[in-house]
Amino acid sequence: MNPYRSLIDIGIKLTSEQNLDRLLNLILQNARAICNVDAGTLYLKEGKCLRFSVSQNTSLESKMGKEKFQNLFIPFTLPISNQSIAGWCAKNLETLNIEDAYKIKDVPYSHNSKFDEETGYRTKSMLTIPIKDKDGRLLGVLQLINKRGDKGKKVFTRQDEKVAEAVASQAAVAIKNAKLTEELKSAHLETIYKLGLAAESKDEGTGNHVKRVSEISRIIAEGLGLDDDFIETIYYASPLHDVGKIGIPDSILTKPGHLTEEEQKIMKSHTVLGYQILKDSKSKIIQTAAEIAYSHHERWDGTGYPSGLAGEEIPLSGRIVALADFFDAVTSSRPYREGIFTMAQTLKIIKEETCKHFSPKVTAAFFSSLDRIKKVHYLLSNGEII
Amino acid sequence: MNPYRSLIDIGIKLTSEQNLDRLLNLILQNARAICNVDAGTLYLKEGKCLRFSVSQNTSLESKMGKEKFQNLFIPFTLPISNQSIAGWCAKNLETLNIEDAYKIKDVPYSHNSKFDEETGYRTKSMLTIPIKDKDGRLLGVLQLINKRGDKGKKVFTRQDEKVAEAVASQAAVAIKNAKLTEELKSAHLETIYKLGLAAESKDEGTGNHVKRVSEISRIIAEGLGLDDDFIETIYYASPLHDVGKIGIPDSILTKPGHLTEEEQKIMKSHTVLGYQILKDSKSKIIQTAAEIAYSHHERWDGTGYPSGLAGEEIPLSGRIVALADFFDAVTSSRPYREGIFTMAQTLKIIKEETCKHFSPKVTAAFFSSLDRIKKVHYLLSNGEII
Repeated sequence: MNPYRSLIDIGIKLTSEQNLDRLLNLILQNARAICNVDAGTLYLKEGKCLRFSVSQNTSLESKMGKEKFQNLFIPFTLPISNQSIAGWCAKNLETLNIEDAYKIKDVPYSHNSKFDEETGYRTKSMLTIPIKDKDGRLLGVLQLINKRGDKGKKVFTRQDEKVAEAVASQAAVAIKNAKLTEELKSAHLETIYKLGLAAESKDEGTGNHVKRVSEISRIIAEGLGLDDDFIETIYYASPLHDVGKIGIPDSILTKPGHLTEEEQKIMKSHTVLGYQILKDSKSKIIQTAAEIAYSHHERWDGTGYPSGLAGEEIPLSGRIVALADFFDAVTSSRPYREGIFTMAQTLKIIKEETCKHFSPKVTAAFFSSLDRIKKVHYLLSNGEII
Repeated sequence: MNPYRSLIDIGIKLTSEQNLDRLLNLILQNARAICNVDAGTLYLKEGKCLRFSVSQNTSLESKMGKEKFQNLFIPFTLPISNQSIAGWCAKNLETLNIEDAYKIKDVPYSHNSKFDEETGYRTKSMLTIPIKDKDGRLLGVLQLINKRGDKGKKVFTRQDEKVAEAVASQAAVAIKNAKLTEELKSAHLETIYKLGLAAESKDEGTGNHVKRVSEISRIIAEGLGLDDDFIETIYYASPLHDVGKIGIPDSILTKPGHLTEEEQKIMKSHTVLGYQILKDSKSKIIQTAAEIAYSHHERWDGTGYPSGLAGEEIPLSGRIVALADFFDAVTSSRPYREGIFTMAQTLKIIKEETCKHFSPKVTAAFFSSLDRIKKVHYLLSNGEII
């Protein structure tokens, strides 16, 4: 088959993938298949280094199992310099076609044999290609290892070079697009946090409550086995659950001691106010945020507010955030006090409140992921970036 | 040259373009070049219709000039149905290869000869291809008109069909990506408006002030001849100029009558508060928003606040928003009053305040685009969507 015909399909496949991790795997997989090689590695440029990003190796993976093979690797970076093969290629922005990695001489770079020694693998032919964008800027390095074939010397031909360079050009566009998508999403998430935080700061919050609710809601959604879209949406939408507090008078929001019945009524209206701020949006995230703002104080038994919805009448997003918000609010310290309850007390209450305050499905997912939730809660409460 | 080799380059070119308008032109241009045709049209699916999006025609454009050619078209849509050639292709998701548009019979569709009658053009061979994503969903239709060539019948070959179908597949990915980018940006902009609005609503604003400031700032930036990146950034960042008002006590923000000196000081701190909310961001938009929040009450002559910066010490973004904000604040009606000044008074003040309150370069750009600014201001003040 005409390799250029396959390259068109590869281009379409790569540029259709917006998730950077999946994309990097896809690039290496397709480059290996079209050039018929046993193994390969992909590095991404990170500052002045190359970060080792993906490794694939058909013979080792079939010998030791895929998982064990992946566990061989500890994340590492290489300097962009002439010492290593990938470093040389990145520094000089040129393809290197090597017949035998152990028989190179009179060049500044050399093959690091550590991996082969540890695994018993024998690296021989290597085709190392810089991944450059259309302005010639380095994005990463694609390394193909051990050309396969029935006959003759198993080395990379000039045709292999051309084909792999074409894949690298396609990969460059796809990587740039995936990074742009990630940047746009993360810029949006930042604005969402700012908005959530602006509302929270009126309420003397700790600053990280909105982030913790966001992370915990995501973990619960994952525990429920929901699809990636829902998980991402609740992650982005949940920080806005209390945005309506922006509309509550300071005198009520920050009043020490108990609120009068009238004041409580106003306070509770933050659910409806939040809904009003967020409704009528074309964005799925903001639509879901409006739903959450409205429903995160409803209770499974129908005794919540603002509408007294019960059971599955309450949107799933609202039920998830109800639990995440409760958990975080009662366990977190504030500048002027420790958490209201200890972790043990909190978990006991969540169990007791299942089918009263909380949805049973949601509490089950919460408990099934409790270790991850505790970890995220701990890290974010101590100012760590996760 | 191997057409598949060119197709790889086309794929890279198309998927590198994130702006949908430019992309649609690029698709048609490349499809025409690789198939060697005189003219072409591109339709995008919109609901249950095809929207006419781009038309290119080498002979008519060279005869009548590019601009005059583009002026021939009034935006229109076609139903996705068997009556028209593009409609049939969209409905049946199949390529149509027609030798002569005036000699088709025994089929449900027919050629609309109106355009030819009006321009004297003679449409003959036509290759009409559905643009489908990888799940087979229709995104649009690519229509190539009048195959060129030195010899033989000027009709589309089976090879042309294959090549144009490959371009259509690449175009599909590029269109989906460009739309995704647009969606992500517009979702972010919505959240920014919500945040700006949340701050403004504390101040009994009219609801559209933040949008008007955003639009007017963009027009001024365009008038200054700034690059697309800056223009887009100020468009997204400027709605957040007053976000610090979220932190100003209601008692001061909504106090009728004059503020005491102490209250004025607190009120003025919305600049610094806004900066604090927005600073430390990785997003260019939010970084610029922080800069604007801080500096939009500085004055060219150094008598503004919070820092008394003068002239070009004040970031350009802050100088632009200072004018856009002033213009909109004094000309817009609020629920309880008309605009503070008439349009004529406002423009007189802006002239007088040039080199006092306002940057001379910025007021010059403002006056050079005054018609557009007035139009946007009028439309957005009357609840129209622009």
